[in-house]
Amino acid sequence: MILDLCLSPALYPYYQKENDTVVVVDVFRASATICAMLHNGAAAVIPVADIETARQYKSAGFLVGAERKTRKCDFADFGNSPFDYTREIVDGKEVVFTTTNGTMAIEMGKESRRLFIGTFSNIDALADKCMESPGRIVVICAGWNNRVNVEDTLFGGAFAERLSKKADMTPGSDAVRIALTLWHQAKSDPLGYLRQSDHYQRLIDNSATGDAAYCLQENTVSVVPCYHKEEKKLRAQ
Amino acid sequence: MILDLCLSPALYPYYQKENDTVVVVDVFRASATICAMLHNGAAAVIPVADIETARQYKSAGFLVGAERKTRKCDFADFGNSPFDYTREIVDGKEVVFTTTNGTMAIEMGKESRRLFIGTFSNIDALADKCMESPGRIVVICAGWNNRVNVEDTLFGGAFAERLSKKADMTPGSDAVRIALTLWHQAKSDPLGYLRQSDHYQRLIDNSATGDAAYCLQENTVSVVPCYHKEEKKLRAQ
Repeated sequence: MILDLCLSPALYPYYQKENDTVVVVDVFRASATICAMLHNGAAAVIPVADIETARQYKSAGFLVGAERKTRKCDFADFGNSPFDYTREIVDGKEVVFTTTNGTMAIEMGKESRRLFIGTFSNIDALADKCMESPGRIVVICAGWNNRVNVEDTLFGGAFAERLSKKADMTPGSDAVRIALTLWHQAKSDPLGYLRQSDHYQRLIDNSATGDAAYCLQENTVSVVPCYHKEEKKLRAQ
Repeated sequence: MILDLCLSPALYPYYQKENDTVVVVDVFRASATICAMLHNGAAAVIPVADIETARQYKSAGFLVGAERKTRKCDFADFGNSPFDYTREIVDGKEVVFTTTNGTMAIEMGKESRRLFIGTFSNIDALADKCMESPGRIVVICAGWNNRVNVEDTLFGGAFAERLSKKADMTPGSDAVRIALTLWHQAKSDPLGYLRQSDHYQRLIDNSATGDAAYCLQENTVSVVPCYHKEEKKLRAQ
């Protein structure tokens, strides 16, 4: 099984091949938040790229999660904290969701054969799902405004290690090797390693340090959000 | 001093700021080869992006170095091995040069305030030159067809460490932190670390393993190639 890693959504055109299965990761925090919604019974997540569309859904009566620059948008029901989306509120509902980087990455990968949302929260379920997929797996890191970030790269390494323990994993390119080195350095204390990172600082500045710890916990859910092209929605697999 | 690192030429638009000083690095092998040319007395290096232009220069009587996919182009005088460009041949001459990735990276960064060519061969001279430059320093990795590679990322880490020993270096973004982690892991044996990398395999396949060792040697020259916008040439600084 070939695993490749694309460190920024803007680089995906240079990694893209036909029949790829894509995993979109946005460790802080969109991936964990989408997982939490579906884990707590949301019928679907409708990812939208821009605030205006999210606002229209809100006017139409939908539940809406919207975040820009680590903060909840005023008009929205929720921001980008996985703790916001409790079963009481989301069970059976469709939730519209837009975040700074996560939804952009979904946009880049949405024409692939299959698109999953992955992160530490669902790492083993995701690995099992990917092992059932024929063809290459490419992890697209959401990054930060198309810049590379540490936490998504780190997940790329953790996922490469996980796949190589479960199957015969071949790195598709050097990006996987870089991520594996990072993960080997950080895995005894990922939160400690990330304390210097740009986004961790942003989370602290917005009183979301609890979120950071949650987003690095492995296997808190067993759901794998999967993008359905025809209806443009993410549903639990 | 702020140092940032752009892991692919295609990402530079997301890192670019006014008044940046840019360092273009293509460890295997364009950066070391350009350094070798100027160190051996070449009057200037004329980087060109495409084969056709290089061919026209050749017809006009210029010395031409041209490489694609690790191999010398048939019509050219030299390929991309630093050992090709001896003093006997290049002293006093202007050399036209095009490579798979290196010249693309120069193209991306050429509108910056200053553009230097850097690599392990001139790491200390480069650091000294950057310390004289006001404003941010951004290292652009040439990568491989806009994909991220290990060796240029590794240089980003080595250079960040070098600058932080000489001055007060602040990482501009997470990419610098990733590169520093990589360098700390690899620095006791960079060649050993790179043995698994994509490009090292390509060099072996093209009998250029000696080049790889040379390209990782620190401070073999003291020249810093600098791009002169008006004349579109690199000259020794």
